[in-house]
Amino acid sequence: MNKQRAERVMSNLRQMGLSQALFTDPLSIFYLTGYHTEPMERFLGLLLAQRGAGVTSTLLCNALFPSAEGAADIVLTHTDAQDPLLMVADACDPSAILGVDKSLAARWLVPLMERQACAGVRLASAAVDDARSVKDAAEQDLMRRASQLNDKGMEWLAAQVAEGVTERSIAERLPGAYRQLGASGNSFDPIVSFAANAADPHHEPDDTTLGRGDMVLFDVGCAYKRYCADMTRTFFTAAPTELQLRVYDTVRRANEAAEAVVRPGVPFSTIDRTARQIIEDAGFGPFFTHRLGHQIGLSVHEPGDVSASHHEAVRPGQCFSIEPGIYLPDGIGVRIEDLVLVTEDGCEVLNHYSHEPVVLDV
Amino acid sequence: MNKQRAERVMSNLRQMGLSQALFTDPLSIFYLTGYHTEPMERFLGLLLAQRGAGVTSTLLCNALFPSAEGAADIVLTHTDAQDPLLMVADACDPSAILGVDKSLAARWLVPLMERQACAGVRLASAAVDDARSVKDAAEQDLMRRASQLNDKGMEWLAAQVAEGVTERSIAERLPGAYRQLGASGNSFDPIVSFAANAADPHHEPDDTTLGRGDMVLFDVGCAYKRYCADMTRTFFTAAPTELQLRVYDTVRRANEAAEAVVRPGVPFSTIDRTARQIIEDAGFGPFFTHRLGHQIGLSVHEPGDVSASHHEAVRPGQCFSIEPGIYLPDGIGVRIEDLVLVTEDGCEVLNHYSHEPVVLDV
Repeated sequence: MNKQRAERVMSNLRQMGLSQALFTDPLSIFYLTGYHTEPMERFLGLLLAQRGAGVTSTLLCNALFPSAEGAADIVLTHTDAQDPLLMVADACDPSAILGVDKSLAARWLVPLMERQACAGVRLASAAVDDARSVKDAAEQDLMRRASQLNDKGMEWLAAQVAEGVTERSIAERLPGAYRQLGASGNSFDPIVSFAANAADPHHEPDDTTLGRGDMVLFDVGCAYKRYCADMTRTFFTAAPTELQLRVYDTVRRANEAAEAVVRPGVPFSTIDRTARQIIEDAGFGPFFTHRLGHQIGLSVHEPGDVSASHHEAVRPGQCFSIEPGIYLPDGIGVRIEDLVLVTEDGCEVLNHYSHEPVVLDV
Repeated sequence: MNKQRAERVMSNLRQMGLSQALFTDPLSIFYLTGYHTEPMERFLGLLLAQRGAGVTSTLLCNALFPSAEGAADIVLTHTDAQDPLLMVADACDPSAILGVDKSLAARWLVPLMERQACAGVRLASAAVDDARSVKDAAEQDLMRRASQLNDKGMEWLAAQVAEGVTERSIAERLPGAYRQLGASGNSFDPIVSFAANAADPHHEPDDTTLGRGDMVLFDVGCAYKRYCADMTRTFFTAAPTELQLRVYDTVRRANEAAEAVVRPGVPFSTIDRTARQIIEDAGFGPFFTHRLGHQIGLSVHEPGDVSASHHEAVRPGQCFSIEPGIYLPDGIGVRIEDLVLVTEDGCEVLNHYSHEPVVLDV
């Protein structure tokens, strides 16, 4: 159990008027306890409860999971023949509301309510989401390391670009390359897009082959000790046209201007606006079709995005992507993405792979 | 909308005393409507409601999803700025209990209850699980085709076995081989186990290299039009020892005896017992450490397993795996798995790859 993190979550719960909460997101449980397993259809839950001045943690595991001994104050194990919800109900205060996280499935929540294990339920994901959003020193090191490895992954990717290669063949070999570098594979399904495919921000790698002159977009991430990296670069394979270069330069300026404005107290929406303004001023506004970025950590997409509708101020320790893009109907697509970590007086850009326009020799 | 399937589900709901239900499992929605998308953190739901003598279906989609026009009687689209639960609440009968499926997340269920969209909630997954369990003619064709392609996949796998190859290198190339055959990739992460790794039924492919004489276990499946295949074969790479052959022969007899006993009316538990008895009689009882099989269809693991604790009788159209295994502490592991489809008077074994012990030339 990470006492400091549990205290932060409990303090958030208290501010929501809650004295107990059940978390079932395996990554939130890992964050709080250091214990990780994917429970699939079985039950895994962590109950945090205010008991006097302290927090008591109870971890509920199936006997088929790896041992969780020592991961929480109390570890309760059930077999497939036992009902884990009886144990949850026993550990709950029936006279108090129970906070639950957003991913708790109805198969567990409905029986808990039917048994009146608590005086009602309330969504309390925000208590742990907020704690996970602000990375502590150990997490900052892991985020930094994951992005260093991702920079090296981008070098490997650039070296795979050759006439006739398919998007899929590069995408399929990427996890192996990450493992060679010391990461543990993809943090999400990689986007490898050639030519007009880059103008679809969600294109999935297919059998498209690279022709000389095609632009190449890589949006990729590795994981390091469960922390996620995520970056995008767009390359040329022949001297860019005037329009291609103008699009590239606009996206690059949007990326760098947004990164320059990040510091504690600045609203997420202002960061989005900064990048968007540059793209609008260049006349490409309608073609920047998505939010500027998303928070990241143990998950690739964590709550609280970098968008026009998110007005909270950023805080030291928060980590998110800055990924402006322009997608033209005539088949030009450019995106440049880095992760940034908010510091006391600005931000640290975690990716160091160059923003310069690069023509790869194919 | 598949009216026949919707009627079956609604009939199951009526037997549970329910007049309305909200389904959110994307595969159940695909099963009922033919529409498929992975909603990620956004809302996708299908409301089935008894309206007079008929069933009314309302599909709720985010505007960012592919168009679902025509997939249900009513298709309601919401943007990220709108609250889809208001639309669900509008479509619900507030005076009736709402059935929900087991995967419905608290982030949707809790606000629905807070808004009193219905008179209470009850788990109703069984209504659609039961319908999905009994495959109709179109589904039977797809299950058959998926397993035919998986048989061919096994031929490809056997041809990859060579001295010095790693488990991972075979596993990583399998999705491409499936696609070449006309399938759409893995239906689950493949198990490729060499030598003693085969004695761990859940071993994940790693950098273990094949030595001459090692046994090789492949537990693999492709998907065809979203329907899943799943089969296991175990190979030799040198003349088997007496013990290896005895283990292999026992598993094979257990597999074939279980397949021979499948016909409508026979309890799932009897099928498990048939295989287990043969393994126990051969003295290997303690080393068959898992259930005999699981149902399969749009998901690899569907509810209602082939195990000692499942006493329901099998019905025509049900499809499940028969996968006895023996895992000895001294590092011998053998499993032989086929899918079977229950017919009117027996079963059709969907896999045709031989059960004979095969020594591959490495």
